[in-house]
Amino acid sequence: MPKTPDFKRSPCPLAVTLDIVGDKWSLIVIRDLFRGVSRYNDFLKSPEDMTTNILAERLKRLEGHGLISKSAYQENPVRHEYALTKKGRALGPVLREIVHWANAYYPGTIKPSFDKL
Amino acid sequence: MPKTPDFKRSPCPLAVTLDIVGDKWSLIVIRDLFRGVSRYNDFLKSPEDMTTNILAERLKRLEGHGLISKSAYQENPVRHEYALTKKGRALGPVLREIVHWANAYYPGTIKPSFDKL
Repeated sequence: MPKTPDFKRSPCPLAVTLDIVGDKWSLIVIRDLFRGVSRYNDFLKSPEDMTTNILAERLKRLEGHGLISKSAYQENPVRHEYALTKKGRALGPVLREIVHWANAYYPGTIKPSFDKL
Repeated sequence: MPKTPDFKRSPCPLAVTLDIVGDKWSLIVIRDLFRGVSRYNDFLKSPEDMTTNILAERLKRLEGHGLISKSAYQENPVRHEYALTKKGRALGPVLREIVHWANAYYPGTIKPSFDKL
């Protein structure tokens, strides 16, 4: 795999993806969006206890990479809600395979339905 | 999703998996094992330029979680080689879906064959 200046680490599709969502929180945010969460405070209610600074940073990063979009639902004060873009929704199969793996090897993990993935 | 003491963050299968491989390097190591890399120094030859301390820590962590196994192939000095366990190989579909996603949204990323995934 030759290095090219177009990619941060390499043109490997795994490396490119991990540079975007390769952390403990980004896919938790994506998961919550799939589940219907859209407003800032509602992400903070998830059982993983995301902190506000992590949430704000991840939302900004994911928006910057085009995985989510932001729109105002209220003025004075302005409040935003978030939604998956087509590109973000396209991560659904990745989430599904991760869930299958964890369900197989970690008994007691939740087995979600995949209506929205 | 109720919290339980059995899981670090939550019984969500995504959270459980991300606590193991949710970083920029673990799946790169898994990828290289799928590609046939098995010896310490050979992981360091990948284009992502993994450092020795990151590699050593990830190998130890992945072995601790049962995703890879270690065996000596030489004595005096002892040298180890690494291989995916059944549990580690079971991450193949996750890697494949990540590759499909990146290939679709990042033109120029490599399109690997999936003989081994």
